[in-house]
Amino acid sequence: MGSITGDMEAQTDYTCTVYRGTFIQTILSDSGSKPELSCNQGALWVSAADGRIKGWDWQANNDHGFAELMTRNGWVDIDDIGAQGQVDSHDSKTRVRIVIASEEQNEFFFPGFIDTHIHAPQYPNVGLFGSSTLLDWLETYTFPVESRFGSPPDPKTGHQTQTDPKDAPLLAQQIYDQVISRTLSHGTTCASYYATNHVPATNALSSLCHTRGQRAFIGRACMDNPKFCVDYYHDFSAEDSIVATRQTIEYIHTLDPEGNLVKPIVTPRFAPSCTRLALQNLGELAASYSPPLHVQTHISENVNELALVKELFPEADSYAAVYDKYKLLTPRTILAHAVHLSADERALIRAREAKISHCPASNSALGSGICPVRTLLDEGITVGLGTDVSGGYSPSILEAARQACLASRLLGQSAAWQRDHSQSVDGKGSDGREKLSVPESLYLATRGGAAVVDMANDLGGFDKGMLWDVQLIRLGGVKLGKKSPLDFVPGDGNADLVKTGPVGNVDLFGTESWEEKIQKWVWSGDDRNVKALWVGGRLVHSRV
Amino acid sequence: MGSITGDMEAQTDYTCTVYRGTFIQTILSDSGSKPELSCNQGALWVSAADGRIKGWDWQANNDHGFAELMTRNGWVDIDDIGAQGQVDSHDSKTRVRIVIASEEQNEFFFPGFIDTHIHAPQYPNVGLFGSSTLLDWLETYTFPVESRFGSPPDPKTGHQTQTDPKDAPLLAQQIYDQVISRTLSHGTTCASYYATNHVPATNALSSLCHTRGQRAFIGRACMDNPKFCVDYYHDFSAEDSIVATRQTIEYIHTLDPEGNLVKPIVTPRFAPSCTRLALQNLGELAASYSPPLHVQTHISENVNELALVKELFPEADSYAAVYDKYKLLTPRTILAHAVHLSADERALIRAREAKISHCPASNSALGSGICPVRTLLDEGITVGLGTDVSGGYSPSILEAARQACLASRLLGQSAAWQRDHSQSVDGKGSDGREKLSVPESLYLATRGGAAVVDMANDLGGFDKGMLWDVQLIRLGGVKLGKKSPLDFVPGDGNADLVKTGPVGNVDLFGTESWEEKIQKWVWSGDDRNVKALWVGGRLVHSRV
Repeated sequence: MGSITGDMEAQTDYTCTVYRGTFIQTILSDSGSKPELSCNQGALWVSAADGRIKGWDWQANNDHGFAELMTRNGWVDIDDIGAQGQVDSHDSKTRVRIVIASEEQNEFFFPGFIDTHIHAPQYPNVGLFGSSTLLDWLETYTFPVESRFGSPPDPKTGHQTQTDPKDAPLLAQQIYDQVISRTLSHGTTCASYYATNHVPATNALSSLCHTRGQRAFIGRACMDNPKFCVDYYHDFSAEDSIVATRQTIEYIHTLDPEGNLVKPIVTPRFAPSCTRLALQNLGELAASYSPPLHVQTHISENVNELALVKELFPEADSYAAVYDKYKLLTPRTILAHAVHLSADERALIRAREAKISHCPASNSALGSGICPVRTLLDEGITVGLGTDVSGGYSPSILEAARQACLASRLLGQSAAWQRDHSQSVDGKGSDGREKLSVPESLYLATRGGAAVVDMANDLGGFDKGMLWDVQLIRLGGVKLGKKSPLDFVPGDGNADLVKTGPVGNVDLFGTESWEEKIQKWVWSGDDRNVKALWVGGRLVHSRV
Repeated sequence: MGSITGDMEAQTDYTCTVYRGTFIQTILSDSGSKPELSCNQGALWVSAADGRIKGWDWQANNDHGFAELMTRNGWVDIDDIGAQGQVDSHDSKTRVRIVIASEEQNEFFFPGFIDTHIHAPQYPNVGLFGSSTLLDWLETYTFPVESRFGSPPDPKTGHQTQTDPKDAPLLAQQIYDQVISRTLSHGTTCASYYATNHVPATNALSSLCHTRGQRAFIGRACMDNPKFCVDYYHDFSAEDSIVATRQTIEYIHTLDPEGNLVKPIVTPRFAPSCTRLALQNLGELAASYSPPLHVQTHISENVNELALVKELFPEADSYAAVYDKYKLLTPRTILAHAVHLSADERALIRAREAKISHCPASNSALGSGICPVRTLLDEGITVGLGTDVSGGYSPSILEAARQACLASRLLGQSAAWQRDHSQSVDGKGSDGREKLSVPESLYLATRGGAAVVDMANDLGGFDKGMLWDVQLIRLGGVKLGKKSPLDFVPGDGNADLVKTGPVGNVDLFGTESWEEKIQKWVWSGDDRNVKALWVGGRLVHSRV
């Protein structure tokens, strides 16, 4: 039986990896509307060639059933071959690797998290925002740190003309590397990244994701409106926006021609930071590829921002209509935040099949408000979760799931929600439908995010043919001794339960159902519980 | 220079411990109203006899200044004596222990956290509440787990007559021990605990806190109204409530006659679970001691609860008036939650000098609402923080501080706040004053909590004479190498920054001011950052 760390290096002497243990995912119930948790025990196998799920056997949930599975398929464990020197006798059999989730340690496989909105260069500012709101936070904290990702200009022309990742400042490379380390450690197998507007640094982020093995969409932030950018950090012109964006797209298409792991995403920062010409050119640029490129931007995060957009684009009926006019509302568009959308905007977004990235930690931290996720879902809009680092203070999608639950539980008491739902509001403020359950927030974190990045058939669950983008979660064992703690003697290291039982902050007492274990994971878990992480079948992170 | 772990055992061969490094606390600014952070570097000394701060020297912030301090006081480091065998030559000098916070590892001393409201027996339910609100959550999750803390009844009388902690079920002892381990690991030096209504288990909690060295108030939960308790878990009568409560008070007074570490606290669960007679007797019981005993209960957490109290106590003008009638609103009373108080109730609470425990994680998780902390503070009411485990999903006061900030940033958009502040509300929903800053939330977690438990002169800061109830926080070092991560080769263990630099989730890049380091700690920190914890000068928790 193989250790999980063995396949950090590429190994191709086996046909597939057989994962054995407990598999938990979110699924839609029979009625098709309400996400639920699903738990299976047994074996599931993933092709070494393409990293996709080829099948499973929930009868193989004990040693006998597992042995039958191995025999039926003519499989032999490569570790058995090595240990017993029986290579010859197994020549006719198919070699497989076996990875086991420990039942005693309460381990289970869970789909990897998808972060549909994260600003990689803002990572050094995580936790720094004082009491500011969106627009002053951008000027005080965000633009200064992002501007440091620029390379020195060409001495002859005074312009940035480099595209080589190695031309990015070393600190920028290191910050991007650390963002990838951190998001992987929290279980993020796929992220849609905002970079800065600098080509070498953006290409460095692409290269690092590709090398480290994280699935990623990489967006060079376009921002050519000098009136609403700071003077030390903006594109020189609408043309510059397009030329530089093309350079990052070409770099990524050369790096990963099939787009197996890393893809470009067209990224107008947000409407106020772009001229009309840039918005138009970016919409045309995305549409000029086949299939069309993904698009990401911000929408309706903050009430001051709404007023600004109205002032800047008086010809548009709404914030969403600005993007629609420039062909930026597409089935492959990720709209971050969407806290204050009107009913008309929601109808337009749904008609265009654009997707929404819900970023609750950021919306609460910046005081932007509470996104009415239930309304979006009821109206058939696709929603995933985003960390929005560093408006969000955490690179963890588990934290985003937790905050999605918390914010939804305060939503019924918000003035905006009560105004919009006056018919269903009783004296208590709401009918409670707006609350997101733990299974729902986990659905948003996995299958929801997969749909947001237009990969609903590839990611987010254990469906046949899906990519093995998966976390191995370890909650730790139950360690209740026979000894009374009242017999404790100071200094004898009594606190065994903390030290040798639980992992991180999750405490199990042996009475929990597996649904309750999942609830404890969501409310008390952290990166310590991510024992291993695979992307496309490749191990990209592990923790002893 | 001594290691921090050396004093887990009692050592009395030194006069005081000299702490050296960075000391950060919250203080009130000159105007006296707005908490700020204060940072000093140098040395501070604590008497080994009583665990209280005797003095400090901020000039001793380098080796030269520190040597001068030692010489001036005639101090000698006990570790130097041992190492150099110079006992004789130092006979005339005063022996001291030295504990150093590492500058390179971004370590600093910070006052211990005070958890002003935590239900110890509910700890196994942390993270389990589905989407319920207060009253159904009590019946579904809380009462079943609490009822398991009972001892078998006396076979002759059918009543519980035991008082010995050892008569508590082993599982109850273990859960209580684990609660203490967990709260210590998160930096809680003092906690006001709700126990259950069982005497042996409540006494076990007292004994365990005393042995493990956590400062604690221990309250046997009184609940004698069978109509609003479940049939399998309540006091038999008002008299039973008083008799059993007296038994726990006597046990604690025998265990800790001076009340140096553990004290009883009179605990009517909340008004609906008690008869009028029990409330009256409990108020008289608290007042019968000199000084009067502390009191803790719940108030105004949830709108359904408000309606219930109004129905049960039609003679009272308000929820607060119920407690006041029975002499339970005292300067030593902790009122948990206080989410929906009227202006009259706030005035009454202020007049009685009762204190409030703000439990933001719980209030958000149970959808109870957002406590208007700014209003309470503006009106001169004393506020501290509580985890409210397991209505709150975390035993960490750092998490409570974070949630206090987050909830306050959503407060301006709540219907209740806008209704009460219609004059100061503009189109954006609020003037922003309601937001709690990081220094303010840390003030609530330390000095605020100290005032709530009526120990403002003893706990919460580094004032002369205060008890050394302190955390040593370690954020970790900055580890930015010279090597480009673009030269990464899969499998070579490149992710050094995560593995050898930061501690937990706090990442420092070397550019942060100490105020920014504190912000990063509050937003990204966890128990991994608590390197050591002292209560009254005694080391009660440490982490390698």
